[in-house]
Amino acid sequence: MPNTTPHLAPCDLSRLIRPRSIALVGASDRPQSIGGRTLANLIDHSAPVGELYLVNPTKTELRGRRCWPSIASLPETPDVAVIAVPAANVLGVVQECAARRVPFAIILTSGFGEAGEEGERAQEQLKDIAAAAGMRIYGPNCPGLTNVNQGLGMTFSPSFPHDLVKGPIGLATQGGGLGRNVMQAMERGIGIGLWASTGNEVDLQVADFIQYMATAPDIKVIVTLLEGIKDGPRFLAALRCAADNGKPVIALKVGKSEYGRKAAQSHTASLTGSAEVNSAVFKQYGVIEVDDIDELVDTAWLFARGLPGAQEGIGIYCSSGGTAALTADAVGTAGLTLAEFAPETTRVLRERLPDYAAIGNPVDTTAAILSDAELIEQTLGTVAADPHLGCVIAPIALDYGETTIRMAQTIIAAQQRCPTPIVPIWMSDRLGEGYRLLVAGGFAPPRSVGKAVTAIRRWVEWGRWQRSAAAVALRNLPAPAVAPVLAPGPVESLPEFEAKRRLQQAGIRLLPAAVAGSRKEARQFADAMGYPVVAKIASADIVHKSDIGGVCVGLEDGAGVEEAWDRIIASVALHKPDAAIDGLLIEKMAPGGGIELIAGVTRDPVFGHVMTFGLGGIYVEILRDVTRRLLPLTPDDAASMVREMRCFPLLAGARGRPPADIAALRQLLLAVSDFVMAHADRLEEMDLNPIWVGPQGQGAFPLDAVILERSGT
Amino acid sequence: MPNTTPHLAPCDLSRLIRPRSIALVGASDRPQSIGGRTLANLIDHSAPVGELYLVNPTKTELRGRRCWPSIASLPETPDVAVIAVPAANVLGVVQECAARRVPFAIILTSGFGEAGEEGERAQEQLKDIAAAAGMRIYGPNCPGLTNVNQGLGMTFSPSFPHDLVKGPIGLATQGGGLGRNVMQAMERGIGIGLWASTGNEVDLQVADFIQYMATAPDIKVIVTLLEGIKDGPRFLAALRCAADNGKPVIALKVGKSEYGRKAAQSHTASLTGSAEVNSAVFKQYGVIEVDDIDELVDTAWLFARGLPGAQEGIGIYCSSGGTAALTADAVGTAGLTLAEFAPETTRVLRERLPDYAAIGNPVDTTAAILSDAELIEQTLGTVAADPHLGCVIAPIALDYGETTIRMAQTIIAAQQRCPTPIVPIWMSDRLGEGYRLLVAGGFAPPRSVGKAVTAIRRWVEWGRWQRSAAAVALRNLPAPAVAPVLAPGPVESLPEFEAKRRLQQAGIRLLPAAVAGSRKEARQFADAMGYPVVAKIASADIVHKSDIGGVCVGLEDGAGVEEAWDRIIASVALHKPDAAIDGLLIEKMAPGGGIELIAGVTRDPVFGHVMTFGLGGIYVEILRDVTRRLLPLTPDDAASMVREMRCFPLLAGARGRPPADIAALRQLLLAVSDFVMAHADRLEEMDLNPIWVGPQGQGAFPLDAVILERSGT
Repeated sequence: MPNTTPHLAPCDLSRLIRPRSIALVGASDRPQSIGGRTLANLIDHSAPVGELYLVNPTKTELRGRRCWPSIASLPETPDVAVIAVPAANVLGVVQECAARRVPFAIILTSGFGEAGEEGERAQEQLKDIAAAAGMRIYGPNCPGLTNVNQGLGMTFSPSFPHDLVKGPIGLATQGGGLGRNVMQAMERGIGIGLWASTGNEVDLQVADFIQYMATAPDIKVIVTLLEGIKDGPRFLAALRCAADNGKPVIALKVGKSEYGRKAAQSHTASLTGSAEVNSAVFKQYGVIEVDDIDELVDTAWLFARGLPGAQEGIGIYCSSGGTAALTADAVGTAGLTLAEFAPETTRVLRERLPDYAAIGNPVDTTAAILSDAELIEQTLGTVAADPHLGCVIAPIALDYGETTIRMAQTIIAAQQRCPTPIVPIWMSDRLGEGYRLLVAGGFAPPRSVGKAVTAIRRWVEWGRWQRSAAAVALRNLPAPAVAPVLAPGPVESLPEFEAKRRLQQAGIRLLPAAVAGSRKEARQFADAMGYPVVAKIASADIVHKSDIGGVCVGLEDGAGVEEAWDRIIASVALHKPDAAIDGLLIEKMAPGGGIELIAGVTRDPVFGHVMTFGLGGIYVEILRDVTRRLLPLTPDDAASMVREMRCFPLLAGARGRPPADIAALRQLLLAVSDFVMAHADRLEEMDLNPIWVGPQGQGAFPLDAVILERSGT
Repeated sequence: MPNTTPHLAPCDLSRLIRPRSIALVGASDRPQSIGGRTLANLIDHSAPVGELYLVNPTKTELRGRRCWPSIASLPETPDVAVIAVPAANVLGVVQECAARRVPFAIILTSGFGEAGEEGERAQEQLKDIAAAAGMRIYGPNCPGLTNVNQGLGMTFSPSFPHDLVKGPIGLATQGGGLGRNVMQAMERGIGIGLWASTGNEVDLQVADFIQYMATAPDIKVIVTLLEGIKDGPRFLAALRCAADNGKPVIALKVGKSEYGRKAAQSHTASLTGSAEVNSAVFKQYGVIEVDDIDELVDTAWLFARGLPGAQEGIGIYCSSGGTAALTADAVGTAGLTLAEFAPETTRVLRERLPDYAAIGNPVDTTAAILSDAELIEQTLGTVAADPHLGCVIAPIALDYGETTIRMAQTIIAAQQRCPTPIVPIWMSDRLGEGYRLLVAGGFAPPRSVGKAVTAIRRWVEWGRWQRSAAAVALRNLPAPAVAPVLAPGPVESLPEFEAKRRLQQAGIRLLPAAVAGSRKEARQFADAMGYPVVAKIASADIVHKSDIGGVCVGLEDGAGVEEAWDRIIASVALHKPDAAIDGLLIEKMAPGGGIELIAGVTRDPVFGHVMTFGLGGIYVEILRDVTRRLLPLTPDDAASMVREMRCFPLLAGARGRPPADIAALRQLLLAVSDFVMAHADRLEEMDLNPIWVGPQGQGAFPLDAVILERSGT
């Protein structure tokens, strides 16, 4: 069940991130203590803060500044209390803060939710105190909050003074270790303006900082590292806000394998959810999901350098044939397009480059001209200015000293004269002066061809998503609902005919079907709907109908139906003598020539109801040709779910097949989504397997339906 | 057609790689010329060579050494002539070398095959002169040959003196640029003992150096970078030799996408072949194929540090929970196994690590104990000594200065006491003293979790391959045949009945079939084989039988067969009045309940005949569930082809199906392989589509057969 805490809804975090006054509780003169290290960061390494109050009842003075005995004793209420006292004293300090109406507390101290039952109890108390007072808590068990763009480190980390490259990236993480790894990308010139590392997330979560960054003017790109998502709807609301503001969110979510899931759970004690559902939700909300932590940085920096435009064509410019081929290969394998150069570009390249150079795309100048800086600058500049290109890759295979320095200078000069991003890749392990120039020039060169091209692919794909109907639809959706209060009863499976009745009531088209109470009625129904028909036992007590001889398919005439009646009733009486029988469900059989699909709905513990849709039949487990969406679906979602299946060519009419009734299929998916949302408090699971889709105009019908729901009373 | 040059078969390259005497033709005192740079590398930066003769007709002395006017004038025949004269003079010098019976010439000069038609003609002449004299040529258009382990640089590259880390890796490349990129991995401590960069490969090819390295005692791991493979059988022979000597071959082949293929072709003018066939052949020969150039290095170094043993379990040891989870995720996603620790390991970890540490696998010591070097050394040492582990990953997320230096020292110390490789991953962009210690300690730390785990996966998989029946079968295969001389005639398609007759003659089981010459005979044949049957027009002039009403399926009785006769003959007479008709092919229909598969054979221009085998039916193009092997197949190949298909569970009896006749299927594949090899000079293409495989005991039969062959006369 989504763990929503509506009384702690998103609030304005400006005063937490840019406080006018800070109280450091537990300020210390022991340089290695948490309080001492935090003090050093605030006094020695931060830009001047409005007011900094040091609180320590055992001192009157610290480093020449006055010490106050308590929060209560302060001359004003600080915007933020940074709490660096031992775990045993934290609750008392937090109570004091609550009494003084301190709006924000950052609790650095460990020994709470991560430290066994006693810690968990203490953490619950923290939560209660804060909720009662309307105070927001950041932490506990976290390294603090680092506002690089303001030069403010409310953190005990001794690394704070080393990682102060200002920039447009906002970083929101849970654990501190991996977050600091990202911060050390500053070594490559990556600027990260704000880092929130929310630790145990007793109150404020990663989602709240994504929400803040979505409107923060100094943040252009949001990066997040997730081990678990505590509150699904809150997270989605933040993603929505980022999308509304045109800010890309780049996410790495641990837990893609069972090993990772277990390790993350033992680390953060938060639900990691299903990787498939996570990825589907990310895709739906335009989140750029990456697979490894180094990819976060390369991808984020490409976005920071410029958002993708409408031109998707890639240009490659380099001076080694093998490298040109390798890079072209990576572009092709990634499904990207090498642009065809504009005639003017080709003209300049032909005129200027020697005969033996390759002037198509990729351009291979050959190493022979490496020493001619002017020639490189002119030709690279011409390529970068080509109106067909969205981006130019300039792979540098080698560090050749002076020659490479000139190449770096040339790239920097060319970039100054054109807006299309030039992406130099520094492929060598030798990091000489050329590398340092590119870092200083703000290129933060990726180090691997594959990783650079992967970042570009994600950048191009996000641009496509931004321009798509899906992004518009997301902006027009109603706000993500707070998770429904679940119906209290146990979960039960509905009989098939009851499940189908409900679907039909909800406007979902099904093949003609009716429950017959007698042999005669069965025949009458069948005659009325036309042959062939299927007969299935109708009983709330029987789930696996086939196993006990409760199903007869392919009945061709009235005599067959009557015979089926006798056979089924007898077989059921034998196997399930106590079952209450409603009769036989008589259904018209689907005509031949259709395709079997499946749709299922489950309730994800983090995000709520998710639909899985895909190919059915015997290859279902082998193909795993399925696509997923969080509900409700937009019409665009339904259309893209159908289109995304690998088997879509079959539906579209490949291999001489007639095109399938895709319109009916979309309609069906939307109707199922509506049905689920209307019963969100009860519906636990639903399986439509198979769904039959016929040729155009012949419809799409669930042939079987299983619904598991909570009873309401 | 495989471009084999049998008169230039592999020879002993020892005297090329470790010459007793070298003549540098074109030695120069201009420091920037090719001859001047090569001279500097030989005199100033190489270890002393037995004899070095400088040849330059315009000088009597260079740098205090005597200059000879010509090769002819030398007092002895040198082992190697390094040729650095302008392109126009190369042929003359080569002729001189041939006359003097110089065994090896290294031609550095450019302006041959890569430089238009005139260059191509000159290159052909080079080839002819060398072939006539039995002289081996390396190059032209190459940077030379670098024997790092002997400290010998027969190269003009100014980078030679910078890349001299000796080691057990042998590198064979075509282009020089990407090769130098790999050499610069020496910056990370990677030792590369020998680098051959074969340029235009007029004679000696990458294959010849793989062959040399396979038995060279100073080379343990062979790395190759390929843009095209000139001579398939020669390449395969070299791979066989490496496999025989237990040496891993790690390959990056450019041309995985159309873009890469085109760019590589324009760069090297060599055939790149099909990426799918390449990958299949690599797999068959145990070659470790990588996807990017940075992966070459990480993978090679892991092999250089130790070959994989029988234990495949991975251990993870680190001090950050997020990093532990991320790494565990990568291990899981790669399909590797996290080992369960031995009880003794668990006991030590429980006893020594604090309560809040995670002592399972992954081990998360937490950052709290990072300062306790002894504790880390003891616990890491215990994990590394665990008998369940094949390898220990120690991801280092951050550079924390002193703390990280101690961690590096601890890893070095732990590794000295155990043979299981410890793989530290240096994840941070900050490369401090800890990094330098690990480099100096020979760990060449990978820089990305995903890439490190990918290298480990390849290492584990190769170990599995080495121990497999496939590796044994490869060693027992007859030597790869030189490509057959192709039959001279045009390529023609055989009529179906003729194709089937040939298959049957070759011992391949087919469903009963016969060509009936009359209506009456058709009925008799059908009666004899049993119904239902299929009737198809039998005519060498008709390929697409269905399109002209030439096929009737599902004939249930004699009357049906006679009726089909009339219908087909009439329809064919209408559509193809001039076709010569042999009658009707009457075939027994495959029973229901089988699965449709396909097998095809094509002639790859590089490697020869390749079989593609996989799932048939309507999902064939969507699933692309196929597997490939170079022919001939071993029984192990046939078995693994069947097993490798994603749809194998269906054949094995998933979803309530009876298990298929897998034995018959394997037998069929082997018989097809034998058939193809017996007709290798003629057979161009073959398609068995569909192949019907029934339940166990019911056989596997090609239902249709297309054969394209060259006529022999």
